[in-house]
Amino acid sequence: MNAPRARVVVIGCGFGGLEAVRTLSRAPVEITLVDRTNHHLFQPLLYQVATAGLSAPAVSAPIRHVLRREMRRGNLTILQAAATDVDVERREVLLAATGDGHGSIDRIGYDHLIVAAGSANSHFGHADWAVHAPGLKTLADALDIRARVIGAFEAAERCADDAAGAAWLTFAIIGGGPTGVEMAGTLTEIARHTLRGEFRRCDPSRARVVLIEGAERILGTFVPTLSQRALEQLERLGVDVRTGCRVTAIDQGGVDYEKRAGDAITRHRLDARTVIWAAGVAGVPLGRALAHATGASIDRSGRLAVEPDLSLPGHPEIAVVGDLAAAFTHGPDGPKPVPGVSPSAKQMGRCAAANLLRRVRGEPTQAFRYVDYGSLATVGRKAAIVDLTVPLIGAVRFAGLAAWLFWLFAHIYFLIGFRNRLMVMTDWAWAYLTYERSARVVAVPDSAEPAMPGS
Amino acid sequence: MNAPRARVVVIGCGFGGLEAVRTLSRAPVEITLVDRTNHHLFQPLLYQVATAGLSAPAVSAPIRHVLRREMRRGNLTILQAAATDVDVERREVLLAATGDGHGSIDRIGYDHLIVAAGSANSHFGHADWAVHAPGLKTLADALDIRARVIGAFEAAERCADDAAGAAWLTFAIIGGGPTGVEMAGTLTEIARHTLRGEFRRCDPSRARVVLIEGAERILGTFVPTLSQRALEQLERLGVDVRTGCRVTAIDQGGVDYEKRAGDAITRHRLDARTVIWAAGVAGVPLGRALAHATGASIDRSGRLAVEPDLSLPGHPEIAVVGDLAAAFTHGPDGPKPVPGVSPSAKQMGRCAAANLLRRVRGEPTQAFRYVDYGSLATVGRKAAIVDLTVPLIGAVRFAGLAAWLFWLFAHIYFLIGFRNRLMVMTDWAWAYLTYERSARVVAVPDSAEPAMPGS
Repeated sequence: MNAPRARVVVIGCGFGGLEAVRTLSRAPVEITLVDRTNHHLFQPLLYQVATAGLSAPAVSAPIRHVLRREMRRGNLTILQAAATDVDVERREVLLAATGDGHGSIDRIGYDHLIVAAGSANSHFGHADWAVHAPGLKTLADALDIRARVIGAFEAAERCADDAAGAAWLTFAIIGGGPTGVEMAGTLTEIARHTLRGEFRRCDPSRARVVLIEGAERILGTFVPTLSQRALEQLERLGVDVRTGCRVTAIDQGGVDYEKRAGDAITRHRLDARTVIWAAGVAGVPLGRALAHATGASIDRSGRLAVEPDLSLPGHPEIAVVGDLAAAFTHGPDGPKPVPGVSPSAKQMGRCAAANLLRRVRGEPTQAFRYVDYGSLATVGRKAAIVDLTVPLIGAVRFAGLAAWLFWLFAHIYFLIGFRNRLMVMTDWAWAYLTYERSARVVAVPDSAEPAMPGS
Repeated sequence: MNAPRARVVVIGCGFGGLEAVRTLSRAPVEITLVDRTNHHLFQPLLYQVATAGLSAPAVSAPIRHVLRREMRRGNLTILQAAATDVDVERREVLLAATGDGHGSIDRIGYDHLIVAAGSANSHFGHADWAVHAPGLKTLADALDIRARVIGAFEAAERCADDAAGAAWLTFAIIGGGPTGVEMAGTLTEIARHTLRGEFRRCDPSRARVVLIEGAERILGTFVPTLSQRALEQLERLGVDVRTGCRVTAIDQGGVDYEKRAGDAITRHRLDARTVIWAAGVAGVPLGRALAHATGASIDRSGRLAVEPDLSLPGHPEIAVVGDLAAAFTHGPDGPKPVPGVSPSAKQMGRCAAANLLRRVRGEPTQAFRYVDYGSLATVGRKAAIVDLTVPLIGAVRFAGLAAWLFWLFAHIYFLIGFRNRLMVMTDWAWAYLTYERSARVVAVPDSAEPAMPGS
């Protein structure tokens, strides 16, 4: 009577993968979770690590610790490994070699596969831009940006040349979505408040933060009135917002961009030694490998087209969830694209896991239906915008202090782990009262020279 | 009447440099502080960062923030730069180039120089050992060791070969001084308590922590009775302590060592994929450059011989303090060597600054006199040893829970910054109650493969 349990592999422990594992762990299946890092990352607060407001452990938690209760049920194995490809014929996930050669597992067989591998930074095909303009996707990215930002003020202090010093005090942020807006607002606060009185040769309050956006308005996924409110809040903080500007080149010394006004195009150069990329995301390489293996189509952002039930066409045993899926929600008004935010990843993770269990039981799968609770973005101290979708009432929109408080508590509420919530609340209360930022330290690797930004 | 103020350069913002700057900042001198990092590091707690108990920002503080009050006095400039050499003829400190070529300051003139550049790891002349057995001196070192320790358990879980898995679960610590003892005690706690129930394929509680010491007893700077108490405490925690063992080779797979018993030498091999170096320190390269430039003699540990007033022979304008100085204390019983601990570095920093001001005023300098308040070392949860020197009473020695509580509060008291004290207290209380370690996350740089220990 003991039929072998179905083997499920989940790739990635972001919001989607974590929800999938939680849903599956109570079912009679054998789960293997594979992630290339040892932690679940609360990505909505990653910009705070990059801007030295929070330490890395405050916004992340060891996967094994997050899933310790599920582990006790005895059907979950967690492996830290990078999944590189899927052998759809033999139904095996291939893992990157460790370079160790001592018997590391390098493939895992599956009956069902959930791919929740997320997205990576995309520099619109300009790989060389990535060196000068890091994006913000991983803890390593955040610590890299933190080192560059702190290092830029240090370099300005050490600089004996006025123009070069000004370029060190200019910060260009490419992309006016939520991440770019958060970064821009926080950087002005650091320059004007946190570092006040701490430098002697340069004046951090003269720092310029320039936010460059290709579209005609920032935060384009929000309604225009909220975009406008966010713009006003940003400008009040001192951010130089430039919309309708297309970046044409990025190098060590700054950014070239062109602005269109009707038919006229004007070209500009911004000397900035620190450039941060917040403009585009792409699918991870595993997405391309999977498209190649299954024949699934892939969109311009590197996302895989999925069936209504989130499976890949012709491969009901493989589901794709989260940022890697070009999914549609199937509501009464017909299909609508699902935004790449954490609530949608969670819902997709739960849906894919539920469909998987339906298949195990021999039942038909169901189409994914996204429940949109609204969206919110923070601009800086006491500044944010909120656009809620409240059942029966409809849209509730507000900005300013109330929106900021709402943003604050929503983010603390959704943080993984009681300990992280305490840490972040303490750090934020402290930062609010003192303007200090608690994580302003940069680990310098052992070598003859200090790590300099841009190097 | 306005004679130009004396220009003082202080190299290094550890315990010695920080005290020197604080002493000097109230005096009519112009100070430049140079450090290769942006933070003051509380090195006594660095092992807690390496063992994932504390985040990097909890044991360090931005130098500019620590010295913000001194900055307000208007005579202090802080530069993040690596001092590489001293031109004693022109009285200039040379700074490593930034590779920037945009007008960075690369030399600083001085009338008086205080060198507090600290020590580096020494692998007894075996540079190749450093790759496999990192030491613990900087935040980057600590994060490297953390990644290896956490990665070793992950590799064991992924390992399909029993012998290879056992080597991943074996941790060798070379050197039974305070750092080695702290690391060994904490690693057993992680293996036996923190990770319990979080793995499925391997059993972390089977991990072996082996402490290898060359001398016949651990903690050789303490009296033998306290060494013995510490040994008993370590063995109760489950540490395998091997004294009288000399390491002869370290490679990716483990450690070769030989044990002497009388005239007999037996050779041993320990298969351990994680090796941590806690055995030897050397002077930083700047020490050798300074010896070359001034003709000062340098001892086996790379420390510079100094005059009783901490100046270099023939160069009264240059003082050396802290770990880089082979200093003697000049008390009523004649000269005695000064130990390389944080209280001695602080006292040397104050003494060198006071002597510098005496020279500015045209007064004679005074010999350094070390006040020894005793020493303490922790072994693990509720286990430590304390050897206090109490005026009028003499030596007060105790071990166990009382010693551990004393160690705890002493370390919190001496932490730099109220905020760090709060963070560490909270983290320790949490860890004590739950056995959790708050910083168990490893940032993996963006690449196709996860960072594996040893690679």
